[in-house]
Amino acid sequence: MRAFYYNDLPEHGSEILLEGETFQHLKVVRLRPNEEFLLLNGKGGCARAHLLSLEKKQARVQCQKSEYVARPESFDVAIGLVKKDAFDLCLKMAVELGIKKIIPLESEFSQRYDLNLERADRLMIQALEQSNSLWLPELVAPTPIDKLDFTNYHHVIVMGVGQGLVPTQLPLLSGSSLALVGPEGGFGATEEQALMKVAGAIGLHLPCPILRTPTALAALAGVIFTKQ
Amino acid sequence: MRAFYYNDLPEHGSEILLEGETFQHLKVVRLRPNEEFLLLNGKGGCARAHLLSLEKKQARVQCQKSEYVARPESFDVAIGLVKKDAFDLCLKMAVELGIKKIIPLESEFSQRYDLNLERADRLMIQALEQSNSLWLPELVAPTPIDKLDFTNYHHVIVMGVGQGLVPTQLPLLSGSSLALVGPEGGFGATEEQALMKVAGAIGLHLPCPILRTPTALAALAGVIFTKQ
Repeated sequence: MRAFYYNDLPEHGSEILLEGETFQHLKVVRLRPNEEFLLLNGKGGCARAHLLSLEKKQARVQCQKSEYVARPESFDVAIGLVKKDAFDLCLKMAVELGIKKIIPLESEFSQRYDLNLERADRLMIQALEQSNSLWLPELVAPTPIDKLDFTNYHHVIVMGVGQGLVPTQLPLLSGSSLALVGPEGGFGATEEQALMKVAGAIGLHLPCPILRTPTALAALAGVIFTKQ
Repeated sequence: MRAFYYNDLPEHGSEILLEGETFQHLKVVRLRPNEEFLLLNGKGGCARAHLLSLEKKQARVQCQKSEYVARPESFDVAIGLVKKDAFDLCLKMAVELGIKKIIPLESEFSQRYDLNLERADRLMIQALEQSNSLWLPELVAPTPIDKLDFTNYHHVIVMGVGQGLVPTQLPLLSGSSLALVGPEGGFGATEEQALMKVAGAIGLHLPCPILRTPTALAALAGVIFTKQ
């Protein structure tokens, strides 16, 4: 079903007016009166609604059902800052995969540029609407790898480190996890050593010579979902 | 290390002449004399070589070491034919992930177009060179879903079917596997029913409402690699 991002979740049975961006978006896709759709607030809230009328600057909408869904186990990711098109793809995939938090990572082989966080948020909202995902990841500013804070994580999974098929050694994850995916070229040798010394660190290596960062991110999610 | 696709694997210690496309490619990336690189034949063969000289229409190359690598467990995929940019991404990811065979699938919600197999092969060769993958997937012509031949598969994994976290129920795979990834919109209800009746069929559902086809493909690979 068609879905739209809407920050405030309307109450069950209420009639609301949609304005601004959400209204524009409804107009662009030519939603018709009585057509049903979802309003997603990106925080687990989902309202089923239908269009009453489309006016000049607003849409009148009736909300039929409104609920909060419990979040399935998920994880945070720190992703090496790669070229913009590859990083955009990572952002979209992270939304589809229901990832909690995205930390763009500055490391030895990462790109250096000013990540436009507003643009990135818009991209993630588009992906949320397309994938009907209930959760919008929290995106933070790029962080140098030696400034990463591991304090609150029980598990730190480092992609591309180690030899052979480490997934079989990945324990059942309980508590919060941070997964690290390197940029093109992976992590530097010194970086790898430092990461593997972090408490709870697990190296993960799939049977593939080089995965581009978006592919690595989605494959990693598959490994983690399997272990939950 | 830089890698080039080369159909014939040169013998250990031999001196060879590279012409045609491989030569053009060497020229484009401005390989310098004595620079080392890999020649990959896409069938598990890998030669380490260095450039002796770059001439007008050919390159003289010395092969230092030439070997065949045993293929890690892998699997075939049938991918719903999606829009070209998404299908291109699937092809590249399939190469990175070392997938054996790709069957583009015509199904209820798939796109219909003439897949340019030559262009697809060139794309996969580029991905092979970029990812240093040793195996070029076999790409076959688009196949209607009701013409799929399951005879030689022990396991048929259907992505996006079933509820909740089926990965924990995915048994250790032994023998040959075929994984099916639907197009945007997934498989139709009748298609799902027919697929789940195939001997060895396993439905797989990740905790994400809608995954685009490339994301689903890479996540699926993560699940399968974990179980090997």
